[in-house]
Amino acid sequence: MNRIKCIIAYEGTLFNGYQVQPNQRTVQTDIEKVLTRMHKGMPIRIHASGRTDTGVHAVGQVIHFDSEYNLEPDQWKKALNAQLPKDIYIKSVTIVDPTFHSRFDVVQKEYRYVIWNETEENIFSRNQHYFFPYELDFGKMQEALQYLIGTHDFSSFCASNTDIQDKVRTIYEGTITKEEQGIVIKLVGNGFLYNMVRIIVGTLLEVGQGKRDVLSVKIALEARDRSFAGKTSPPQGLFLWKVDYNN
Amino acid sequence: MNRIKCIIAYEGTLFNGYQVQPNQRTVQTDIEKVLTRMHKGMPIRIHASGRTDTGVHAVGQVIHFDSEYNLEPDQWKKALNAQLPKDIYIKSVTIVDPTFHSRFDVVQKEYRYVIWNETEENIFSRNQHYFFPYELDFGKMQEALQYLIGTHDFSSFCASNTDIQDKVRTIYEGTITKEEQGIVIKLVGNGFLYNMVRIIVGTLLEVGQGKRDVLSVKIALEARDRSFAGKTSPPQGLFLWKVDYNN
Repeated sequence: MNRIKCIIAYEGTLFNGYQVQPNQRTVQTDIEKVLTRMHKGMPIRIHASGRTDTGVHAVGQVIHFDSEYNLEPDQWKKALNAQLPKDIYIKSVTIVDPTFHSRFDVVQKEYRYVIWNETEENIFSRNQHYFFPYELDFGKMQEALQYLIGTHDFSSFCASNTDIQDKVRTIYEGTITKEEQGIVIKLVGNGFLYNMVRIIVGTLLEVGQGKRDVLSVKIALEARDRSFAGKTSPPQGLFLWKVDYNN
Repeated sequence: MNRIKCIIAYEGTLFNGYQVQPNQRTVQTDIEKVLTRMHKGMPIRIHASGRTDTGVHAVGQVIHFDSEYNLEPDQWKKALNAQLPKDIYIKSVTIVDPTFHSRFDVVQKEYRYVIWNETEENIFSRNQHYFFPYELDFGKMQEALQYLIGTHDFSSFCASNTDIQDKVRTIYEGTITKEEQGIVIKLVGNGFLYNMVRIIVGTLLEVGQGKRDVLSVKIALEARDRSFAGKTSPPQGLFLWKVDYNN
């Protein structure tokens, strides 16, 4: 038995998120369908570094699965891409140690959120950014972001409908830059709670607009109460950019 | 009665082209539907600089229509964008002389064609480029393109199913550049025949790949026979970029 690790990209627009759901098109369903067909009907289950919501994209999601086939990485890549729909793409394949696990072995993850902060919408990338045509104070957004970097209890920045008890996470890096595709908020951390990136972005946008002051972000963090943070920004601006492992 | 000129953008992926067709979603149908609703059911007909095919995009298509309403340009823009679907966008509105005609008054048009010439597909812009992962000789493509600039009978570079008799057109400018979104072939001319840009691009790609030599483009032009030119490249790489008028 071989354990296969894949780095995959998907454009989330036409999926009901990553995870299998009855009668819905999902990324997991589409990949498992192709793998099961390749294995002559034997069901193949894939495991990802984590799920993503409807409309959220991935540039570097990581999955793994087991197979009896002895294909070379490049043969896997070609066979899968030939059969997958055009909004999923296998970027690289590695044969890994059978103990590797795409979820349990994650060391850090990088998310990027793209904001189209222009007066005119760009319809060509409308599903890959959040159109936000209001003036923003970047200095204040940068300042507010500094409060979130480090190890904190992120209860205030987590969707309230979650089962997870331990809400302490570490953000190693957070930057806001202007790129050709828009304003990019990049966050690197050891893990992210449900909707955490989108709530952080929504809160920073409220700071940038002057709807709340910089210090309110520190206060929100300390309150450990979702109602102290800002709105959840929409999914289409969010990209799971990279997942890192020890090896 | 006021004549209204609009510069519009659309992402062609989900349209069956520009022009009205029974039981099909088209750009013209969607815009006329909104205008007719605004005019309390009185049918409003729009006129474009020309049609575009299924999958072809527009960054600067021009349309005009007549209305009894005395709205300011910015009011028109806001009202239309509020009601139009997200893959059509009104970029600007001008109240023009009642003699202006978006099709008859065209002085020149600019088309751009985007080719993603990398070994790996970029799924995020897959509907806005032609994925062409083969090695290309740009020098030869540039050389071949020079034969097409100027005034010529473009019969060989026109889809055979056309009624138009006079196939003489002038290409004022033709360039091939490498941009972030891919290789961009830009053509500016006084008019373009049916599929002309896509046939020119398909032919240049065959030159770039070494499937035909540079001189074959000159020979194709002189032959005035569609079978002498290359394949028609796919629609999703094509953008109607700009339409110019005298005023």
